Amino acid sequence: MALLGVRAVVFDVFGTVVDWRGGVAREAASFLARHGAAGADPGGFADAWRRRYSPAMEEVRSGRRPFTRLDVLHRENLEELLPEFDIDPGRVSAAELDELTLAWHRLDPWPDVLDGLARLKTRYIIAPLSNGNIILMLDMAKRAGLPWDAILGAEVVQAYKPTPEAYLRTVDILAMRPEEVCLVAAHNGDLAAARRCGLRTGFVPRPTEHGVGQTTDLHAEQHWDVVAEEFGALAGRFGV
Amino acid sequence: MALLGVRAVVFDVFGTVVDWRGGVAREAASFLARHGAAGADPGGFADAWRRRYSPAMEEVRSGRRPFTRLDVLHRENLEELLPEFDIDPGRVSAAELDELTLAWHRLDPWPDVLDGLARLKTRYIIAPLSNGNIILMLDMAKRAGLPWDAILGAEVVQAYKPTPEAYLRTVDILAMRPEEVCLVAAHNGDLAAARRCGLRTGFVPRPTEHGVGQTTDLHAEQHWDVVAEEFGALAGRFGV
Repeated sequence: MALLGVRAVVFDVFGTVVDWRGGVAREAASFLARHGAAGADPGGFADAWRRRYSPAMEEVRSGRRPFTRLDVLHRENLEELLPEFDIDPGRVSAAELDELTLAWHRLDPWPDVLDGLARLKTRYIIAPLSNGNIILMLDMAKRAGLPWDAILGAEVVQAYKPTPEAYLRTVDILAMRPEEVCLVAAHNGDLAAARRCGLRTGFVPRPTEHGVGQTTDLHAEQHWDVVAEEFGALAGRFGV
Repeated sequence: MALLGVRAVVFDVFGTVVDWRGGVAREAASFLARHGAAGADPGGFADAWRRRYSPAMEEVRSGRRPFTRLDVLHRENLEELLPEFDIDPGRVSAAELDELTLAWHRLDPWPDVLDGLARLKTRYIIAPLSNGNIILMLDMAKRAGLPWDAILGAEVVQAYKPTPEAYLRTVDILAMRPEEVCLVAAHNGDLAAARRCGLRTGFVPRPTEHGVGQTTDLHAEQHWDVVAEEFGALAGRFGV
């Protein structure tokens, strides 16, 4: 069976486990209203913030910048983003910008997540393998009840996905062989990078991660070790 | 109140949370019997293994050796230890030495721990701040039901206690001020080092950590922020 020998199931988080767009939009709405941009679309604000995510990490992945945790990148990106919405970041207090940045710590899981993770935890080590930093993942888990066994990911290994180090150092920390670790993600690119490192792969589509009309990652683009519609079916495929 | 403002409670683990001596002795007993040392005291074997712990870490703390996880140090120390018990390590299979090293992953918590941690977890972030590596802490937690919110400690920050970096980098990862983090330990020296870094301190004596006749760490040697006889009373002092 495709998953035989797996001992740890690690998860992409933004999009796969939690609805980042809905959560950020929820908190952005009142912020935009307070700052004279009540007509702006909060979902579009979340999208614009997220578009700056990968380029900011690329500075680190390329070696041009030392490892910098995602909270810092999110905060910088927020300041750069505000003028697009006709808000002068210099006229917003640092405390308010800090607080809005913490919206990323307060994202809600998709409805199938908690039950699926609880089932997987009975037999496997479960942990995030996210580009989010430790306190971000920790605050999120505590608020939402995500029952992680440990917080793994970019800050622990000082490398951002999809660089091979992000996956291989995580495998090393777990003292496992790559094929004993399965990455679950809603993103074909993340899974492809993990597979190149020898990890097992599980795809769970999240067709509204980017809102209605999403065109990417609607389907498995390779023959992943497991494909499941949601985390309950995923747990079933893992035999729990 | 001495603990006002604390948001995270982090724990020394070996001795404070789990009974390393009893757990290692339990697994050493059958090993010793198999290798012709049935007359040796398994508790003494555990003590002798543990005596090599700090000197091995000191190689890392001093900078003479790059950061090396505790599982590796435990394994090396085991090989060096065996001749003291008239066992030739060259005549024991690598698999058996690996397996005995994993005894450190299978230690039992003191009887008051699980209830106390569950209470503390309702209001605080709880995590190990141990010199044990991540998979060691993770296996231990999974087996014993320790409900950590995250696995922090030496491997995450690449520094062994009691160097200041071990405490200060953990505080930094938590994005807190030092006084928002309280270290709980059964060891006055660990607490003294944490206090020098600005952390709050909680002492829980474990008077049989080293077996009957223990002479060290029986009492608080400074006026720690909280002193409690066991984790239930500790949780009470934290208001949960």
